[in-house]
Amino acid sequence: MSDYSQSELTGLSPKFFKTNRDNFIKNLKLKLETLPEGSFLFLKGGSNKPRYDNDDDFHYFVQESNFYYLTGVLEPNFYAIIDLSNSSLSLFVPLPDERTKVFMHVESLEDISKKYECKAFDLLKMPSEIKILKPNKLYVLNGINSDSKLKILTADYNFVFPYDELNDLIDHNTLIYEILADTRTRKTNEEIELLKYLTKVTCDAHKETMKKIKENMYERDVENIFYRYIREHLYIRNHPYEHICGCGLNSATLHYIENDQKIKNNDLILLDMGGTLSGYCSDITITIPVSGKFTDKQKNIYKIVYDANREVMKNCKPGINWVDMHLLAEKVIIDGLKKEGLLKKEIDTQIMLNKRVGYYFMPHGLGHLIGLNVHDVGGYLSFTPPRREENGLNLLRSARNLAVGNIYSVEPGIYFIPFLLEKAFKDNDIKEYFIEEKVREYFDFGGIRIEDDVLITEEGCVNLSESLPRTVEEIEEFMKK
Amino acid sequence: MSDYSQSELTGLSPKFFKTNRDNFIKNLKLKLETLPEGSFLFLKGGSNKPRYDNDDDFHYFVQESNFYYLTGVLEPNFYAIIDLSNSSLSLFVPLPDERTKVFMHVESLEDISKKYECKAFDLLKMPSEIKILKPNKLYVLNGINSDSKLKILTADYNFVFPYDELNDLIDHNTLIYEILADTRTRKTNEEIELLKYLTKVTCDAHKETMKKIKENMYERDVENIFYRYIREHLYIRNHPYEHICGCGLNSATLHYIENDQKIKNNDLILLDMGGTLSGYCSDITITIPVSGKFTDKQKNIYKIVYDANREVMKNCKPGINWVDMHLLAEKVIIDGLKKEGLLKKEIDTQIMLNKRVGYYFMPHGLGHLIGLNVHDVGGYLSFTPPRREENGLNLLRSARNLAVGNIYSVEPGIYFIPFLLEKAFKDNDIKEYFIEEKVREYFDFGGIRIEDDVLITEEGCVNLSESLPRTVEEIEEFMKK
Repeated sequence: MSDYSQSELTGLSPKFFKTNRDNFIKNLKLKLETLPEGSFLFLKGGSNKPRYDNDDDFHYFVQESNFYYLTGVLEPNFYAIIDLSNSSLSLFVPLPDERTKVFMHVESLEDISKKYECKAFDLLKMPSEIKILKPNKLYVLNGINSDSKLKILTADYNFVFPYDELNDLIDHNTLIYEILADTRTRKTNEEIELLKYLTKVTCDAHKETMKKIKENMYERDVENIFYRYIREHLYIRNHPYEHICGCGLNSATLHYIENDQKIKNNDLILLDMGGTLSGYCSDITITIPVSGKFTDKQKNIYKIVYDANREVMKNCKPGINWVDMHLLAEKVIIDGLKKEGLLKKEIDTQIMLNKRVGYYFMPHGLGHLIGLNVHDVGGYLSFTPPRREENGLNLLRSARNLAVGNIYSVEPGIYFIPFLLEKAFKDNDIKEYFIEEKVREYFDFGGIRIEDDVLITEEGCVNLSESLPRTVEEIEEFMKK
Repeated sequence: MSDYSQSELTGLSPKFFKTNRDNFIKNLKLKLETLPEGSFLFLKGGSNKPRYDNDDDFHYFVQESNFYYLTGVLEPNFYAIIDLSNSSLSLFVPLPDERTKVFMHVESLEDISKKYECKAFDLLKMPSEIKILKPNKLYVLNGINSDSKLKILTADYNFVFPYDELNDLIDHNTLIYEILADTRTRKTNEEIELLKYLTKVTCDAHKETMKKIKENMYERDVENIFYRYIREHLYIRNHPYEHICGCGLNSATLHYIENDQKIKNNDLILLDMGGTLSGYCSDITITIPVSGKFTDKQKNIYKIVYDANREVMKNCKPGINWVDMHLLAEKVIIDGLKKEGLLKKEIDTQIMLNKRVGYYFMPHGLGHLIGLNVHDVGGYLSFTPPRREENGLNLLRSARNLAVGNIYSVEPGIYFIPFLLEKAFKDNDIKEYFIEEKVREYFDFGGIRIEDDVLITEEGCVNLSESLPRTVEEIEEFMKK
């Protein structure tokens, strides 16, 4: 496995992104009826944003994912043109004034051209340089992100050059963005190598926390152990998401991020923390006993979640539908909770699944695509299965059939969330399925999540986070040392 | 000195912010001709912002400074009303839906009320609750930040409640914001105690880098040493600004943030890194030899910058104008460069100052106010001296007279920036002042900045970063160990 630890410093090779462009264009040709001659993709890169009114931007600049995927550009405020006949790249670069040159490290057009293996032009000359290409069509990205419902970044040519004839060539066809998002769901070999390395280092960082965690630390101390390791090994300055370190009851708040409580020896702690490398994300959750030893009660619930996690992995393969994997995880959880005496054995599991009982213990989706965004794009497109409407299933970030090269998080969990369970106990449609007094014994339990990142292959799937101690026995053995 | 290291976790006391409100109201009464009965200040808090189109916000939420200064509120999406007759606080709190309650740690109105010593209401009931107060006037903050030229956050009541009679009571008088900004420039005793502690820990973190720096590290390794220390000692997740670790030539780029080069033994490294604590900022720069020992050439330039830094500190006291302090630093620098044979001895220093020769060696302002923003507010207000127009002086973030309770960075520097000096060599008005062939010998030198944070007192000023080894001898002695 290559050593990528300097790669955010040195940048990935231009070839890495050329491969992405080639794959995108291949997919375009496959899905569009025609791709007229003289077609270009016109892209806008990300910009720095002020946090509020003062002169301090958000730290640190992260490139917009679609732009990065197709160009590799790390600097803000660029525009790009991709020739769809040969995937060659032209970049339009804002040139600095005296003050900018004094304050910032800036590169010449020659440097940029060499660094990204492309043509590089002064941004101010964009209209004339595009005209030299004699385009017939300038596609722009246009669409809605299915997780956030926000509009994706569109090259606003008519905003920058309102009276320019090139505006007549702009094509807002939303299929273009969808095809790009779809391409991003199937990772290239180069992306897979990078994500394998990143995920391995992320697991190493989690193992570091397992070694160093101690009673009476604050949750944020545990976060610091993880972050120090990953920052020093990957040189990162950005997180893929806000780290979740929830001890005791806090582990039942799905995106608990305060991390400001003292941890207690008898508690479990849920650690959902990932890393980034050259723009890509990892997303791993471990749930471990602070003391290094599970209580029987903890052990029994942990084993159910573990079984759900492994059962899903056993069944992941190309063609399998992701909603079915979610339901499979719920089935294992319901069966496990029956065995533990929290749900009534005599009710058929399928009935409970249909009535969405699983939602009350796992009120989130089984997992999501991972890539340049931690919740990566492509989960719902006009040519893939629509979002389901049932409670819980509507939270899934994808309802697609699995395909080779997909990377998904597999993150089943069981949480005891009092207000949610109280709601179930009052719901005439389902309350009879619960053994209420038994479930109430778990109101101070918190939650357990086990999250791995898996790659879909021809044969099934590969667990990228397999180096983690995962069974009760493995965890207790590892933490004993 | 108190131990504030847990304070970002536990929050400052409501009294801290009540004092801020009292001071603001005192200043209002002093500067406004009338403050009618029934006057209230209506405020909007900060919100989470998505980085791009996906569902990942910028990490981590930081409260907007004016709102924080007056309320202490750490959560996003609040509104507030302050009764200007007694400085009492009412908060309007967005109540969570089921999904939010499952995902986020949320507090009840009772919790909020207790935590901030205020009344707390459902945000949806804001109009009716405000009407109960029978206001005659609802002041809102309205103005422009003088560093960024951006509009400050204004409570957009007419946007939220377009058809409400309260709109008639809204008063956009820009003086209100200016008086608040002015109040923020004079720190309370509680703010001073906190900033003293923060600055001390920041100095400790810099000392840690001085101990651990080694040849062949990357600049980012040095950043990591600092960040690890400050993160583990202050529990912080946000920087006050992007850290600058520039070795060799990189030290002459004022806001160099790539930090991706290997450091060399004979180089100086410029480390401009600060911390945050409970929203407040520190901003400290050290420039040290990687090897622990200055060369003669480095030593001579360093001593000039050090003299400029100390000469300014010696002269800082209430009533002194900040522009004069900048010119004093330039004078020491010009005299020093004359002695080193880079500028012509026979030209009067005052003439060089008038011709703005200092700008070519120090193309930034001497320093800035520090507080909740690293470049804090209040530098230019309608009732303070206007921005100067001369080259270099126009970069100053304040032209005010110093006052008790101000905290300023004092950060003179000498940088050899080839393109800027080439410009000077071609300028018929000043080129004769330079000994060009001598200056060219420094084109590979980089730059030196020495930045302390000082508090203005009745007697003069106190250097909050005095625990740093600062002279050539102190640095060499400290790094020898």
